[in-house]
Amino acid sequence: MLQITQEERDAVYKTIYNRRDTRSEFKSDEVSDEVLQRLLDAAHHAPSVGFMQPWDFIVIKDKKIKQKIKDGFEIAHKEAANMFEGEKQKTYKTLKLEGILEAPIGICITCDRKRTGDTVIGRTANLEMDLYSAVCAVQTLWLAARAENLGVGWVSIVHHEVVQDALNIPDDVVPIAYLCIGHVTHFHEKPELEEAGWLPRMPLEDLVHYDSWGNKK
Amino acid sequence: MLQITQEERDAVYKTIYNRRDTRSEFKSDEVSDEVLQRLLDAAHHAPSVGFMQPWDFIVIKDKKIKQKIKDGFEIAHKEAANMFEGEKQKTYKTLKLEGILEAPIGICITCDRKRTGDTVIGRTANLEMDLYSAVCAVQTLWLAARAENLGVGWVSIVHHEVVQDALNIPDDVVPIAYLCIGHVTHFHEKPELEEAGWLPRMPLEDLVHYDSWGNKK
Repeated sequence: MLQITQEERDAVYKTIYNRRDTRSEFKSDEVSDEVLQRLLDAAHHAPSVGFMQPWDFIVIKDKKIKQKIKDGFEIAHKEAANMFEGEKQKTYKTLKLEGILEAPIGICITCDRKRTGDTVIGRTANLEMDLYSAVCAVQTLWLAARAENLGVGWVSIVHHEVVQDALNIPDDVVPIAYLCIGHVTHFHEKPELEEAGWLPRMPLEDLVHYDSWGNKK
Repeated sequence: MLQITQEERDAVYKTIYNRRDTRSEFKSDEVSDEVLQRLLDAAHHAPSVGFMQPWDFIVIKDKKIKQKIKDGFEIAHKEAANMFEGEKQKTYKTLKLEGILEAPIGICITCDRKRTGDTVIGRTANLEMDLYSAVCAVQTLWLAARAENLGVGWVSIVHHEVVQDALNIPDDVVPIAYLCIGHVTHFHEKPELEEAGWLPRMPLEDLVHYDSWGNKK
């Protein structure tokens, strides 16, 4: 059996614990094609329901296209600011939440819901499973990127229609994530929203139940 | 900056490429509490929108509760078989698709959509982002488990209501994944559906576009 050694296991944990959402720390240095292909191939080896592989990857380097995404972010960001009140709104406005133009590469991961036909093994009772498979590809790429010492930022403050339009994505294909990727000056020690005092990390034991919801050891 | 070395990077890729969905290979050997806690803590360090940490983890060892999930699987599995026709239906019926009773541990990962309130940073334009965060926790746990040489199987052929009822999950909390976890006799070299000839792996280059959908290099 193909064993993962203890050292290799520790490397996986190190990568998981040191992965961050990058917004402000992108450097303009190019990401090589070789590294980019490794990231995409890793993402392509995420689990997918019924081996459906519903994902596509759009690699964005064109500045005009990045600008369209950025413009879409600005609109959704203004809408969002109005949803917060008082101190939270003030803090919200000070946060840098994306690095669309700074990151040398954008990758949009999508989900083709019709891939392999209407009936998919494992998706019969839960139609959302293909979307979840595409999300697994996002997290797999994110961890691979951290292992390459690259930063990744997930831009979620943008409407689907903007992404769909900017990247010419067909109507029946769902944008799952727009990711900014690049070399970074550094990784934050903790998630930025934790560092900023926005929210604390919850104690793990509060989140674990045994056999039945609410049942604690 | 905290660097991941080349050897550590390779360990991450090794884990990504050798992760499998386990159904038939579970051994009854217990998973230690120490390892279980490592898996849960790793999952708790997945990315989450607005640092919302919307997940809970229900750890199932009780055989009666596993049986309820298994009964729910049987119902959804019969429904599913009727959705396939001819040869595909025959093949479908021969596939072993879960190891609910054999795996020593079940873990249900859920998403509490109201955690941290109605307005969540980063979820304002895309309300599904909390569900996606919980899926990131699933894939993080899955990779950590592979790094511990443990098998994981995602049981998606079961209706949410069954899981909700069996585990006493509140109505406003969404079950994202029911995972079977345990030591295994072996890992398949390739995904089982690929080995069984159900579907081939798609060539990566068919899935990659440059700057705009359909644009190939």
